[in-house]
Amino acid sequence: MPELATLPTPCLLLDEPRMAANIARIHGRLAGTGVAYRAHLKTAKSVEVARRQMTGPRGPAMVSTLKEAGIFAAAGVTDLTYGVGIAPDKLDRVRALRATGVDLAVILDSVAQAEAVAAASTPELPLAALIEIDSDGHRSGVKPADAALLGAIAAALTPRAELRGVLTHAGESYAAKGQAALEAAAEGERLAVVGAAGILRAAGHACPVVSAGSTPTLMSARRFDGLTEFRAGVCVFFDLFQVGVGVCAPDEIALSVLTEVIGHQEDKGWTITDAGWMAMSRDRGTAGQAVDQGYGLVCDLAGRPIPDLIVVGANQEHGIVAQRPGSPLPPPKLPLGTRLRILPNHACATGAQYDAYEVVGPDGWRATWPRFSGW
Amino acid sequence: MPELATLPTPCLLLDEPRMAANIARIHGRLAGTGVAYRAHLKTAKSVEVARRQMTGPRGPAMVSTLKEAGIFAAAGVTDLTYGVGIAPDKLDRVRALRATGVDLAVILDSVAQAEAVAAASTPELPLAALIEIDSDGHRSGVKPADAALLGAIAAALTPRAELRGVLTHAGESYAAKGQAALEAAAEGERLAVVGAAGILRAAGHACPVVSAGSTPTLMSARRFDGLTEFRAGVCVFFDLFQVGVGVCAPDEIALSVLTEVIGHQEDKGWTITDAGWMAMSRDRGTAGQAVDQGYGLVCDLAGRPIPDLIVVGANQEHGIVAQRPGSPLPPPKLPLGTRLRILPNHACATGAQYDAYEVVGPDGWRATWPRFSGW
Repeated sequence: MPELATLPTPCLLLDEPRMAANIARIHGRLAGTGVAYRAHLKTAKSVEVARRQMTGPRGPAMVSTLKEAGIFAAAGVTDLTYGVGIAPDKLDRVRALRATGVDLAVILDSVAQAEAVAAASTPELPLAALIEIDSDGHRSGVKPADAALLGAIAAALTPRAELRGVLTHAGESYAAKGQAALEAAAEGERLAVVGAAGILRAAGHACPVVSAGSTPTLMSARRFDGLTEFRAGVCVFFDLFQVGVGVCAPDEIALSVLTEVIGHQEDKGWTITDAGWMAMSRDRGTAGQAVDQGYGLVCDLAGRPIPDLIVVGANQEHGIVAQRPGSPLPPPKLPLGTRLRILPNHACATGAQYDAYEVVGPDGWRATWPRFSGW
Repeated sequence: MPELATLPTPCLLLDEPRMAANIARIHGRLAGTGVAYRAHLKTAKSVEVARRQMTGPRGPAMVSTLKEAGIFAAAGVTDLTYGVGIAPDKLDRVRALRATGVDLAVILDSVAQAEAVAAASTPELPLAALIEIDSDGHRSGVKPADAALLGAIAAALTPRAELRGVLTHAGESYAAKGQAALEAAAEGERLAVVGAAGILRAAGHACPVVSAGSTPTLMSARRFDGLTEFRAGVCVFFDLFQVGVGVCAPDEIALSVLTEVIGHQEDKGWTITDAGWMAMSRDRGTAGQAVDQGYGLVCDLAGRPIPDLIVVGANQEHGIVAQRPGSPLPPPKLPLGTRLRILPNHACATGAQYDAYEVVGPDGWRATWPRFSGW
C-alpha cells in the first residue's frame, strides 16, 4: 500500500473490506427474522458509507442530528427517524424537511413534547412521532409499564400528529459483561419495547413500529419477535470499546488513524507520534473495561497490532506510544518517520475529529470519502 | 439577549468582553518585561480571534498543525512557529510555506530530525528550527543539561539550516497544586530553557530565541529574565480545567455551549439536554482535579452558574444535567425547552467540535466567526 507512506498524517483510514464484512454481519443477523435494519448513520456521517450500510437507497435510517437528516435526505434517504428527544425549537426544521417529502419521524417521552408536536402538526403536514421507552435506566424514555404516561402522551399526540410506534435503546448493554449478560440485555430491551407497544395497542393505538437497537444487543440477541426494526450504528466500523464488550475482534475494526513517529524519550520507553487526542478524540471509554487500551491500540501499516503497544498518553497533537503497563516486552524500535495505524476506542468520537475517510481496499488507497460534523 | 432564545442548539458561544479581558490580562502579564507574547492559535483556530489575541497583525504566533500555519499565513501572519516536533514527511509543506515569505520555524529534539531539516534546506531557502527542551518530563524535548545532545543537534542543523533558539512547554504545570507549585513550575520552565540556551551559546551558537510557555506558568511566573518570548493559548478563553489549576475564575471563561432541555427523568433528578459529548467533547480533564465538573458547569442564559448543577453524564447527543454528587440542593425546575449555557472543561477540545463561534457582546449576539479543524 504505497499511498500509506505518503498520505499526510494524521488522517483517518477506512478499511473497506472490513466495513463490508461488518455490514454483511449486520444484515445477516436480521436475515429471515422479518425485522428491518434501520441503519444508524451517526457513526459514519457519510453518504458513501450510508449507501452501503442501508438495506435500500431510501433507508430505513436513523440520525442523531437534524443536520444528518438534511444531508441524508438530500442524498435520497426518505425514511428517517431522528433519535434524540425532540426539542420544541427544532420542530420548524422537522416540518421543513417533511414538507420536501421526507418521512422524518421524531421521538419523545413527555406530554409536553407530544403537545408541541401536535401543535406543530397540520392536516396537510402532520408530524410523526415514536414514544421513547426507557428499557434499562440508561437515559431518556417512559418506563415500559407506565400505562398512564404512555396513554397520556398518545392522547396528547393524536389525532393531529401520528403515533408511529415505540422505540428503545439498551444503552446499558455497553456495560454488560459476558455473553449471558449481553443476551439478557437484548432480551430486556426487546421485552420492554414490545410490552409498551402492547399497552398502547390495548388502549386502541395501532403502534405499527416497535424499534429496538444497540450494537451489543444486535450482535447478541437470540429473539427478535414482536420487533419490527432494529437500529445500530457503531457495528458498521466497530472499535476497541466493542472489543471490550465482546462483540467483535480487533481485526474487525474498520477505522484506524494513520500517524508518523516524530520523536522518542528512550529513558521512558516512549515513542512520540503526531496523533494526539485531537486525532484520536478524548474518548477513554476502555479505561473502565477489563483491558484499558489507552488512547488506542498501535498497529503496523498492514493493520496488525504490535504486541502490547498502545497510546498511553496524549496531548493535543502528540501521542505517547509505549508498552502496556506491566508488559514484559521491550519497546519496539520505531525510528523517526515510522508510520503506524492506531485502532480507536470509539468509532463515533474518533470519526468526528475528521472531515474525510481515506478508503483503503485490498490493493491500497482507492478514494477519499467526505464526512461531516455539526448540527 | 433575545438571539440566545433562537440560535439553533447546540452551538458554541464566545463571550467577547470576557475574551477581551483575558487578552488584556495576557498582554498585561508581559508588559514591561521585554518578553514578547507569541500567541498560541491552536485553541481558537480562528482568524478573528487571532487578530485580537496577537500583539501585531503579522504575529508572533504559534500553531499546532500545518493547516493552522497555512490558514493564518494566508491571513497575513508571517511570524509563525509550528510547535510539534517536525516529522520528515512534513518538510515539503514547511518549505512551500516558507517559499511564500512566511517565516515558519519548526521544532525538533533529535539529531535525525536536525539532519532531515538540514537536508531539506537550500541556500536560497534555509529552514529555521528551535530545539525543544524537556523542562519537566511532560512529553518531548532534550534534557536541559544534555550538552552533548544539544551540541550534536546544533551541529547537524547548521550551517545549512538556521538554529533559531530553544523552546519549552511546562506541561506538568497543569498538574501543579497551589500558588507555590505554580510559581515553581514557571521558574523550572524558565531555568530549563535559559540554561539550555546558555549551553548552546557557550558552544558558539547565537540562540537568539528563548521561548517558554503554558497558560498556568504565564499566569504564575514571577520572573521572565533570560526569556525572549512566552507562548500560551488556552488563556484566551480559559476553561474549567484552568479554574481547577487556580489561574482563573468561572466568570472569566469566554466559551460556553448553548443547549436546550429535551426531557427529564424526575425520579433520578436528571434533566436531559441536547448537548452531549459531541457538543462538549469527551474531555473529562477535571475528573482528576479536586472539583470534578463532569462534562461541564451549567449556567443560566446570562452565564451565571446554577448552584451545584453540572453535566453528570453524556451520550453522543444527550447531556445528563443533575446536582453534583452530595449536593444538598434540590434539582432546579428546568422545563422542556429551557435554554442553558454550559462552561467546558477544556476550551481546545470543546472548540474543536464546532465550525463557528456565535459571538456574544454586551448587547447580545453580534456575529458568527468561522473556526476550522483538521491537519
